[in-house]
Amino acid sequence: MEKKLHLVAGPLPGSRKIHVPGKLFDLEVPMREIILSPTVDARGKCRENPPVIVYDTSGPYTDPRHEINLDKGLPRLREAWIEAREDTVKLPGPSSGYGRERLLDRSLDSLRFEHVNRNPRVARPGKRVTQMYHARQGTITPEMEFVAIRENQLAERAGEQCRGEHDARAPRQITPEFVRQEIAAGRAIIPANVNHPESEPMIIGRAFLVKINANIGNSPVSSSIADEVEKAAWAFRWGADTIMDLSTGKNIHETREWIIRNSPVPVGTVPLYQALEKAGGDVKRLTWEIYRDTLVEQAEQGVDYFTIHAGLRWHHVPLTIDRLTGIVSRGGAIMANWCATHDQESFLYTRFEEICEILARYDVGISLGDGLRPGCIADANDEAQLAELKTLGGLTRVAWKHDVQVLVEGPGHVPMQKIRENMELELAWCDDAPFYTLGPLVTDIAPGHDHVTSAIGGAMIAWHGASMLCYVTRKEHLGLPDREDVKEGVITFKLAAHAADLAKGHPAAYRRDHAMSKARYEFRWDDQFHLSLDPERAAVLHDASLPGEGHERKRYCSMCGENFCSMRANETLREKLNPQ
Amino acid sequence: MEKKLHLVAGPLPGSRKIHVPGKLFDLEVPMREIILSPTVDARGKCRENPPVIVYDTSGPYTDPRHEINLDKGLPRLREAWIEAREDTVKLPGPSSGYGRERLLDRSLDSLRFEHVNRNPRVARPGKRVTQMYHARQGTITPEMEFVAIRENQLAERAGEQCRGEHDARAPRQITPEFVRQEIAAGRAIIPANVNHPESEPMIIGRAFLVKINANIGNSPVSSSIADEVEKAAWAFRWGADTIMDLSTGKNIHETREWIIRNSPVPVGTVPLYQALEKAGGDVKRLTWEIYRDTLVEQAEQGVDYFTIHAGLRWHHVPLTIDRLTGIVSRGGAIMANWCATHDQESFLYTRFEEICEILARYDVGISLGDGLRPGCIADANDEAQLAELKTLGGLTRVAWKHDVQVLVEGPGHVPMQKIRENMELELAWCDDAPFYTLGPLVTDIAPGHDHVTSAIGGAMIAWHGASMLCYVTRKEHLGLPDREDVKEGVITFKLAAHAADLAKGHPAAYRRDHAMSKARYEFRWDDQFHLSLDPERAAVLHDASLPGEGHERKRYCSMCGENFCSMRANETLREKLNPQ
Repeated sequence: MEKKLHLVAGPLPGSRKIHVPGKLFDLEVPMREIILSPTVDARGKCRENPPVIVYDTSGPYTDPRHEINLDKGLPRLREAWIEAREDTVKLPGPSSGYGRERLLDRSLDSLRFEHVNRNPRVARPGKRVTQMYHARQGTITPEMEFVAIRENQLAERAGEQCRGEHDARAPRQITPEFVRQEIAAGRAIIPANVNHPESEPMIIGRAFLVKINANIGNSPVSSSIADEVEKAAWAFRWGADTIMDLSTGKNIHETREWIIRNSPVPVGTVPLYQALEKAGGDVKRLTWEIYRDTLVEQAEQGVDYFTIHAGLRWHHVPLTIDRLTGIVSRGGAIMANWCATHDQESFLYTRFEEICEILARYDVGISLGDGLRPGCIADANDEAQLAELKTLGGLTRVAWKHDVQVLVEGPGHVPMQKIRENMELELAWCDDAPFYTLGPLVTDIAPGHDHVTSAIGGAMIAWHGASMLCYVTRKEHLGLPDREDVKEGVITFKLAAHAADLAKGHPAAYRRDHAMSKARYEFRWDDQFHLSLDPERAAVLHDASLPGEGHERKRYCSMCGENFCSMRANETLREKLNPQ
Repeated sequence: MEKKLHLVAGPLPGSRKIHVPGKLFDLEVPMREIILSPTVDARGKCRENPPVIVYDTSGPYTDPRHEINLDKGLPRLREAWIEAREDTVKLPGPSSGYGRERLLDRSLDSLRFEHVNRNPRVARPGKRVTQMYHARQGTITPEMEFVAIRENQLAERAGEQCRGEHDARAPRQITPEFVRQEIAAGRAIIPANVNHPESEPMIIGRAFLVKINANIGNSPVSSSIADEVEKAAWAFRWGADTIMDLSTGKNIHETREWIIRNSPVPVGTVPLYQALEKAGGDVKRLTWEIYRDTLVEQAEQGVDYFTIHAGLRWHHVPLTIDRLTGIVSRGGAIMANWCATHDQESFLYTRFEEICEILARYDVGISLGDGLRPGCIADANDEAQLAELKTLGGLTRVAWKHDVQVLVEGPGHVPMQKIRENMELELAWCDDAPFYTLGPLVTDIAPGHDHVTSAIGGAMIAWHGASMLCYVTRKEHLGLPDREDVKEGVITFKLAAHAADLAKGHPAAYRRDHAMSKARYEFRWDDQFHLSLDPERAAVLHDASLPGEGHERKRYCSMCGENFCSMRANETLREKLNPQ
């Protein structure tokens, strides 16, 4: 790797990694346990506070048992499960022309991931290997048990419940059988390419915890492989459930290999970007053959889901001409230009069945791209957007015919009063397939703060039923996010997703809020920091505002000071009302 | 002033101050005009873009005609209007005991605002001087015409409209008569103490633009007068519609004088804080007489609205005992302790009619404090909170009997699915009085990011009808905000309020989004920065991500680079579809 990484590893403050064993399979599900200090009452009596178990996306990076070595990649957790199914074979080498070419190019040796997957795995002839296929056959896979245990976060151990109002179809306890049913019905997906055995299974669906995706990837203007791997590890640490590598710059094949081999979360891409690179950036030269080879190349590297803008049809393009901001999706703009240049229907649409056949062989999920999403408040919920969404519904059913798992992508820029309609139409037209939205941003006028404009819309649409939110950083509309932008974006979307989990009444969501508020009320400052989505910032901001040493343990803070602290006043009040 | 200020003054980038004359009165309403560059098409042809007029809270600080001199205070815009009504008299000196004492204390000379208001104004005997009184008499005041012009932002000049779904009762064009009706009905207030003639009138009500408040004020632990005046000026610059001075530390009388004399926006306080200071921080020594004197003291300084926690009654207190976080309002905690200590009903409740009589003489508005607001998700919408809200409804009607203008304060910490109920109950129980909420925060687990957790709830409740949002900074729960926290808090809430204005269909809200998106589509980068709520951050973040010089004028950015820029692709596409 050309540059030394500043990789932050090891447990988060106050936390340790625990592993919960499976019952059906020999597996262990890693979780994060936040250890709390005891409550000390006015008389000095101690009562223990049980630890809080939270969902953990950080993978082996926070596991002290594991020694991080980016050059070797992560342990291949799922390899034995995949082998045991006996429905795949190992190829003698990459089957994509481009994959072979890159492997043979000695000039790339210095960039290449050392333990590159030279023998990709593919379905045996006549076999379907997707989680959806297995679910429909009535089979519970280890991946399904893994996510069931992971979703519950040992909630059965805790008593409290806080049910929301929305019917999220979620039972109080997620079982492997429930997971299987949701996947069989297409209402949820487990993105799990057979060539990405390093990933820890996770589920995206309305009945489960709301997930977030972090986009990383270089652009032709800036960033290096090291920067991107570092950003990815940083995103896992703070809570990204999946990442998308949107690289459009140099050496994207090699960048992707590094990222996948070191990613404990599913990785998504937009293969069209690389296909266009291969065509020299010229839509005239972009062909189905180049695109097809790119799908195979990336599927054999282990990409877990592909964004494919197959719903943008040639006859939709004129609907965008009177828009204020036209087509703002990169993939959408490329395909619209392709249609206009070649004067024919998009090959992503006409070749869609072939695409599904390829994807089914590796269990790559499809994320049906919204190439016509609105790029501003003025264009929200317009004819172009809705025409494409309806097309995505049809494509969802085609993919399902091939047992390919599907996400449907959604906007974009939408004012608050139009958010719910997006969700309702998606559920109706796309037969309850999981909705994966970018925000939406509820106003156009806050560049520099678009993590917030999009967290508002994101929390709302996730409450209404969106299954995954693509983060938006404060650099949106301005430039490529750096490391700190990534962290702020991840945490902002984590809080939006969690707010939706609370509103939907996910059985495991409420405990952390309860523990946080109890710690706050009892002035257990360290516990508050450890329970925060951002322990570092919470501690730094608190310490910054109190002069001198040792203040952080005081039973008040600089916001109100000692005499005006309402929390302290309550202690006095309770003693007055309940003298003992 | 003991310390030199770092006061940033002068116009915002790309903007100039304009003044729109009244028709009924000899007045001018300041607004901010953002000047845009022309659109240059592919053939080099230019088309002008009209300037965008936006609401401007920054007062004389951004007016080059005005020379800032904090020692002299701002021009007394409203003085002639107040005098012309002939319903007030000037007193020979402060009528509060404490006010006189502080004025005579020579040791305070170095701290004191030089041009202190030694002759406060008060209603002539038998006169009522509130905006509500005048409105009910059928009189349109200059303040009413001022806010009508201000709300419209010259929207009549622009053609576009974007109507939301919510019935906000707003006509397409706000007239002075409509303002009068809303104030007469208690659905809106213009906080306008006769002793704060420096303030530029603004209106808080459901049919108008959503307003935001920024809390400033020192605490016993940190901050100085200079810090607080600087924070206040900074808050005006970025969009605070009102400020609350919540000082609880040293020299709060003098700090307040400096702030009010230099504030172009209404100033609110919680007089209970200072009353408790006068009682040595001891609720045992806190009396109605001390409190009453404090109301008079602050009313004569020019405070425009008082938060008064009169709805917290003695019999409500036991309802909080089983809460997870008890009473989290400082004022609420003080009064609950007062009731418990003295074993009697709160004097704020028993003396409420006397309080209204005092306030009516100066036109100080009442913001009915929610002393029992929930401090965590677990306590949201509980019996204690709702019992107090119902009491606030009764007190609203009492205040209106005295022609005192009323805001009702709301929570706090509320999960998304419980937000709407808060708004509906407030409208039902408090007869449509404007609701003024703190967030609400939609989860407890993000200290360090609570500007975002509260902006989510704030945008939602404002859409449902809340009239003003109290900002929450990222330091909430951790410490006293500094200057940068104030800016981020103000801008975060400005975007939340604006999102609600869009959703409610305020006739003037949509233009700025439209202009921003058009500028974005046409790569007019400087225009995008100038139209942003945070021009500084937008420009800095954009420039940071592009290497070298001159890049900021390129027709793409580092996020996607040149070939993958969808905006560029649209240009090509339009040419293909519409060849000329």
